[in-house]
Amino acid sequence: MADRFPSDVYERRLRRAAELTRDAGLDALIVGTGPDFRYLTGSRADTFERLTALVVPARGPAKVITARIELAALRESAVPDLGLDVTDWVDGEDPYARATDGLPRDARIAVSDSLPALHLIPLAARTGTAPVLATAVLRELRMIKDDAELDALRRAGAAIDRVHARMAEFLRPGRTEAQVAADIDAAMLAEGHTVAEFIIVGSGPNGADPHHEHSDRVISVDDVVVIDIGGPVAPGYNSDSTRTYCFASPRPDVAAAYAALEEAQAAAVAAVRPGVRAAQIDAVARDILTAAGYGDRFIHRTGHGIGLSVHEEPYIVDGNDDVLREGMAFSVEPGVYFDGDWGARIEDIVIVTADGCEPVNTRPHSLVRLPVG
Amino acid sequence: MADRFPSDVYERRLRRAAELTRDAGLDALIVGTGPDFRYLTGSRADTFERLTALVVPARGPAKVITARIELAALRESAVPDLGLDVTDWVDGEDPYARATDGLPRDARIAVSDSLPALHLIPLAARTGTAPVLATAVLRELRMIKDDAELDALRRAGAAIDRVHARMAEFLRPGRTEAQVAADIDAAMLAEGHTVAEFIIVGSGPNGADPHHEHSDRVISVDDVVVIDIGGPVAPGYNSDSTRTYCFASPRPDVAAAYAALEEAQAAAVAAVRPGVRAAQIDAVARDILTAAGYGDRFIHRTGHGIGLSVHEEPYIVDGNDDVLREGMAFSVEPGVYFDGDWGARIEDIVIVTADGCEPVNTRPHSLVRLPVG
Repeated sequence: MADRFPSDVYERRLRRAAELTRDAGLDALIVGTGPDFRYLTGSRADTFERLTALVVPARGPAKVITARIELAALRESAVPDLGLDVTDWVDGEDPYARATDGLPRDARIAVSDSLPALHLIPLAARTGTAPVLATAVLRELRMIKDDAELDALRRAGAAIDRVHARMAEFLRPGRTEAQVAADIDAAMLAEGHTVAEFIIVGSGPNGADPHHEHSDRVISVDDVVVIDIGGPVAPGYNSDSTRTYCFASPRPDVAAAYAALEEAQAAAVAAVRPGVRAAQIDAVARDILTAAGYGDRFIHRTGHGIGLSVHEEPYIVDGNDDVLREGMAFSVEPGVYFDGDWGARIEDIVIVTADGCEPVNTRPHSLVRLPVG
Repeated sequence: MADRFPSDVYERRLRRAAELTRDAGLDALIVGTGPDFRYLTGSRADTFERLTALVVPARGPAKVITARIELAALRESAVPDLGLDVTDWVDGEDPYARATDGLPRDARIAVSDSLPALHLIPLAARTGTAPVLATAVLRELRMIKDDAELDALRRAGAAIDRVHARMAEFLRPGRTEAQVAADIDAAMLAEGHTVAEFIIVGSGPNGADPHHEHSDRVISVDDVVVIDIGGPVAPGYNSDSTRTYCFASPRPDVAAAYAALEEAQAAAVAAVRPGVRAAQIDAVARDILTAAGYGDRFIHRTGHGIGLSVHEEPYIVDGNDDVLREGMAFSVEPGVYFDGDWGARIEDIVIVTADGCEPVNTRPHSLVRLPVG
């Protein structure tokens, strides 16, 4: 599998981005390196202090501004095939004048979410207007995955499922979280990921911190262990799946909370279909946990979109009135967290289908009991 | 070595940041996660779509806004010792109102360079004013390293020098760039880096791309190979050093260009002292290469500041009139690039002293000839 899609995919996306820019009444879209840049050009370029950006005007051809030393990286992207005008600049020159060259005075521009202030502020000074977020334009494109993207997400899901299926090889009492993480890292690469983007091994009290990574804590036979892992498979689409493990019979309070969590996660997945609002999926999971007495233990949103970014729109969160549509892909991952004691989370990526959803992760959802040694 | 300095270091930095904010006529500094956040709080927190930020008002106590699920990560930073007010928010709430709470209407704010548009645009909408870059405030602090920071940079330099000293173990004809990079990665960790932040193995024509990383290209006995490597040592300060290697007698044209490069790099290092402008150091290297006929082969700036970030101010670049001062640290790294054929670069990190500079890298600067097998 190549590192990007065929160039006609990017040609179509760029044309659509220009249409959406026009529809939004904007003069141009300015996209710095990052996921939006990769989505539109197939380039993995990643620059910080030197501006490399794609400029998509509402009318007229798109162009790329890049530091000369990044030119070689662009050769591997779809940029040469697309015939985009590429303007390079060298250290000491002003890339912002080049990026806004040809735009009307007081141009209304939208910028990519990840464009840093370092570039946004001088760009805004050039146009003299306050930029808006390109998400408003690009979300329509990026949220609805095409068949090739869905295929990549399915491959990513299958790859991370194979890692979870091997968890008994890695996760044993007496080992440190870091040792387990190192083995998971190697397994993720072996099972088809290009990099292990994140590895959470949250044992015992560390499981109560949803964003714990891993530590030198030695895992005990009595621990509940949260394993939340993911990363990209070619051409850049991410996996993200959480399962929770143990080695002994769970305490009654753990079993009770886990049962409520499992019910909440399954009900939220079952509620996914076109026409439902994102906030409703969050409410389904939250209401079940709240009714069971664990409402204040579920301290984060129910999920996030996934694709070239691990976290992207749509966010499955209270207040988000986005209506689910066929082709969206996102996580459903409620959790319960007991500070200083233990935590649990169950996470699948689901794809919205014509009349429901297709989970790309299919490992068992129960608290998985692993052998001790 | 702990992962951060003692808390009094951050207390002093925060106090100074507030003074500089006041001096600049600003109402507040808003610092998202990243190097500035780490510099001021000792926290390695790294969030994207959920705002975590330090707010330093010109007058009154600093505070931290954080997503609740990031609270645990802040506990390991200096934030608890500093007694900062921490306001957490949960998914679905508005962090921007909390960040700007208590600031005057039309507050003039400065934001950290790395704050993404995703957060900058809603923050600016709240204040109703155009933010400026916090660099203008923080550069005074971050550019002049204190003794503990200089010590960390010296340790980083010694660590990467030990890796270059072992290059004959890794770099041999018949191996791929990726194989060499994997060994260098392990050696960087073994020699004291917490992570191998970047590894460039540019063999033959790949050496002509300054930002090439590594590939499956098999290294040949006739290749010139650029090795540019670096990463952080505790508590987060980076190494960055380039040496160029070969296995056979260099071609006459290679030897001639390399001799000019070596002279240019040495002259630029020798020119570093307080009172000289950054642009002058760039000119010293560039003039020598230009006089020798290689001016158009040197396609990037001469260097960049280094510290918690691999690239930070001061940039050693044409047009930068920043005057060098004692305690600054930056790279001096001219290069020559012959598209499709070969390239070379020599890079040391230097610390500006009272009357000159102290290079933290001390490996030989000549084209290093390694054994073939």
